[in-house]
Amino acid sequence: VPVATIKYYLREGLLPPGELTAPNQASYTSLHVRRLRLVRVLREVGELPIDAIRRVVAAIDEPGRSPHEVVGVAHHALGPVPAGPAGPELDEVDALLDRLGWEVSPQAPARAQLAAALSSLRTLGRDVDVEVFRPYAQAADRLAREELARLPLDGSADELVEQAVVGTVVFESALVALRRLAQEHHSARRHGAGRREGGPHPS
Amino acid sequence: VPVATIKYYLREGLLPPGELTAPNQASYTSLHVRRLRLVRVLREVGELPIDAIRRVVAAIDEPGRSPHEVVGVAHHALGPVPAGPAGPELDEVDALLDRLGWEVSPQAPARAQLAAALSSLRTLGRDVDVEVFRPYAQAADRLAREELARLPLDGSADELVEQAVVGTVVFESALVALRRLAQEHHSARRHGAGRREGGPHPS
Repeated sequence: VPVATIKYYLREGLLPPGELTAPNQASYTSLHVRRLRLVRVLREVGELPIDAIRRVVAAIDEPGRSPHEVVGVAHHALGPVPAGPAGPELDEVDALLDRLGWEVSPQAPARAQLAAALSSLRTLGRDVDVEVFRPYAQAADRLAREELARLPLDGSADELVEQAVVGTVVFESALVALRRLAQEHHSARRHGAGRREGGPHPS
Repeated sequence: VPVATIKYYLREGLLPPGELTAPNQASYTSLHVRRLRLVRVLREVGELPIDAIRRVVAAIDEPGRSPHEVVGVAHHALGPVPAGPAGPELDEVDALLDRLGWEVSPQAPARAQLAAALSSLRTLGRDVDVEVFRPYAQAADRLAREELARLPLDGSADELVEQAVVGTVVFESALVALRRLAQEHHSARRHGAGRREGGPHPS
């Protein structure tokens, strides 16, 4: 990591200062190294703006915050937080969540995000019910369950939170990438444009 | 839709001009209305920058482009397009795609996106193989298959492409939202912070 990057992160309050060992030298611990990794991944993989990273890091460091609360803060920071309620669609999303038996915060921005997606489908003239999302909910449920099962039960709160936050950013990115690859694959099969023709991308 | 928005889209070349019926009046067809809806959803749900919308719209309108090609253009526009190859991880991703039997373009940005996710997990000290993504690939495969099955086989190329593009934007947003809700739900169950305590979000 370039020194300029570390200095920038220090200046922005994303890394705690090291211990001064000489007027122009500071000593850093493995905690600093771990935090530096987290900040870089949030920045480069999650593409979070600096102030969002600052909020996530502050939540991790705040005493008394449960890992569950920090996951909520991270979801807020990761955005998007839709501007306003989507009206009747929000009630339909709530009804779906109830039927699924999911316990989620009434303030979770993902609820409004889902309502906005439903509203968009209708704006586009698709006559759909909120149940159109059930296959996605079932896939998400399975994946979330597996992700959490991978976390060590005996880790520190810091580790748990860091892994949950990074897992969200990294596996979300992986899931979106795989969905597009799968769509490209099935689209190629359906429309008969195989690899031999050079693929779907213009040169 | 506010008139200022329509004028802005016209100026930016996202909507074709209407037919002038008087010096200060133009007539718009149902094609215009459909395109206006598409542009608004790409902007408001997909949060695409104007120049990315322009590329998608241009690809739809270009004669001779197959729906499969336009899906590729849309995936590029939807980003992110990772800066460079992720080295050995890219080969591992290719091997996974081969084992899955997926036919995807060598230029698909999602391949590099997936390689970057694998690289990030390792930077964070997780000792993982590319097979860690297999459950996500299986979920993505099922969902892509179902999405494509919903498209009418007898629609116009224009309709097919519009629905594929919007489907990517809208269902990707829905999938990400549901993954977070599922994570919050399972995290609440695991850490014992139930709805009664007010949920995971700070007031």
